[in-house]
Amino acid sequence: MQRYFIEQSKIDSRLVLPTEIYHHAVIVMRMKPGDCFEVVAADKKVAVMELEEIAEHSATARVCKKIEHTVELPLQVTIVCGLSKKDKADWIVQKATELGAQHFIFFSGDYSIVKWDKKKQEKKLVRLRKIIRGASEQSHRVMVPTVSYIENIKTLQLEKYSEKMVAYEEAAKEGETASLAKIVSKVKKQQGSIKDLHLVAVFGPEGGISPAEIQYLKSNDFSLTGLGPRIMRAETAPLYLLSALSYALELN
Amino acid sequence: MQRYFIEQSKIDSRLVLPTEIYHHAVIVMRMKPGDCFEVVAADKKVAVMELEEIAEHSATARVCKKIEHTVELPLQVTIVCGLSKKDKADWIVQKATELGAQHFIFFSGDYSIVKWDKKKQEKKLVRLRKIIRGASEQSHRVMVPTVSYIENIKTLQLEKYSEKMVAYEEAAKEGETASLAKIVSKVKKQQGSIKDLHLVAVFGPEGGISPAEIQYLKSNDFSLTGLGPRIMRAETAPLYLLSALSYALELN
Repeated sequence: MQRYFIEQSKIDSRLVLPTEIYHHAVIVMRMKPGDCFEVVAADKKVAVMELEEIAEHSATARVCKKIEHTVELPLQVTIVCGLSKKDKADWIVQKATELGAQHFIFFSGDYSIVKWDKKKQEKKLVRLRKIIRGASEQSHRVMVPTVSYIENIKTLQLEKYSEKMVAYEEAAKEGETASLAKIVSKVKKQQGSIKDLHLVAVFGPEGGISPAEIQYLKSNDFSLTGLGPRIMRAETAPLYLLSALSYALELN
Repeated sequence: MQRYFIEQSKIDSRLVLPTEIYHHAVIVMRMKPGDCFEVVAADKKVAVMELEEIAEHSATARVCKKIEHTVELPLQVTIVCGLSKKDKADWIVQKATELGAQHFIFFSGDYSIVKWDKKKQEKKLVRLRKIIRGASEQSHRVMVPTVSYIENIKTLQLEKYSEKMVAYEEAAKEGETASLAKIVSKVKKQQGSIKDLHLVAVFGPEGGISPAEIQYLKSNDFSLTGLGPRIMRAETAPLYLLSALSYALELN
C-alpha cells in the first residue's frame, strides 16, 4: 500500500491531503474515493486512511485503522560516508534507508576525489532528501532519515553516540572478526532500554580512509571493525553493516 | 593489489601473461618490471607474482609468495532472481559477488515486466560475466561466480541444493523471523563438513513473486523466509541475505 509522511504531529481522524500528497495520490496514482493508503505522522504512528472526497485541487481522507507493529531497527544508526564519485551517495542513502539507517552524514575524506562546494552541497542534499523520502515510503519506515554534510571527519559531533566504529579494511585483512559482534552483544544486553543506544559507523570513500583519519577516530574510541574477509566497495560496506545488525537484532 | 584470474589449473613458478592480462597490467595499469599483482588459478590457489620481463606484446612474471587464507563464504550460495527492469541485474551480480555468492540464475517471473529473448540472453550474460569477473578481482575472491538464465522458476534444477529458501514479503509481514536463523544454525552444526552444503535462495522480481510460484517452491521444500520487518526492493534483498550469512558464519 502506498505510504506517505505528513508533517503534522499526530494523525487526526480526518486528513485534508497536503498538496504534494494530493498530487501524488489523486493525479499520479489516480486514486478514487474508497481507495486506501497509509500515512505516518511526526510521532511515528501509522494509520491506514481511506480517500473520502476529491475536489478540484484538494481531497480528504479518514482513518480506517491504526497500525502498531514496529519496523524500525532497535538501535539508532548513523552512517557516515566519505564522498565517492558519481551517484554513489544516491544509492547508499536509498539502500541504507531500506535497511533501517536513521541518519546519514557525508564528509570529504583525505582520499576523496570529489568535494562538494557550498552550491553543490545544497543541490545534492535536496536530491538526497528526496531519494530518502521515497525509500522511506517504499520500505514502510515510520521515520524519514536525515542527511547532512561535513567538511571533515574531525567536525563530526561525537557526544551523542554511545557506540562508535569505523569499517577498516586493514582490520578485516588481519582477521578482525569480533568488533561488530561485541557491539551487537552490548545492544542485546540492553534490550528494554535500547532507545539510548546510538551507533555511529564511519566508512571511507573509494580511495579508503587515511592513516591520519584512522588515528583521529582511534583516539576518539572508535573501534576498528572488520566486516568479513572479502574486500567490499565503499558503497557496499554500509549495507553489509545494516543487514548484519538486522539479522542479529531482528531475526533469531 | 590488482588481482587476475587465470584459466590454467594451477600456478607454476613462472607465468607468461595471457593476452588480456598483459593488456590490463602493462598497457592500462602501466606496470613495470618489479611491480606485483596477484593471480588465482582454477584450483582457487592465490599467489603474489612479480613482473619480470616486458616484451612488445608479452610479459612474464614469477611467483613471490603463495597466499593461504580463505575469503570464500563457508557454504555455497546460489542467488536466483526474477528479472527486474533497467540495469538491476548488473548491480545485483556486482554487489552479491563482493558479498560472496557463488552462482547466479536469473529467471523470467510471472510478474516480471521484462523478458530476455534468445539474442538478449546471450548479450546480457556476456555483460554480466564481465561485471562478475571485475567484482571478483576487486573483492579478492578466489573463484569467479557463474551466471545463467532460465525461462521459468520450474526449470530450476533442485537436486544439488541441500538448503532451499525463498525470500517472501508476506512471511516477513506475518513476523516470520526464524527461517534464516535455522539455516545458519544447520550450517554451523555441520562445520568441518560444510562443503556439501549448498543454499539456493530465490528472490522475486520487482513485482513480487506470484502465488503460483510460491506454491511451486513450497511444494518443493523451499522455506518461506522473512528478511526483517522493512520492505526491501528486489535488488536489496539478496545483499541482505549474503551480509547476514557472512555476519553469522564469518564474524563472531
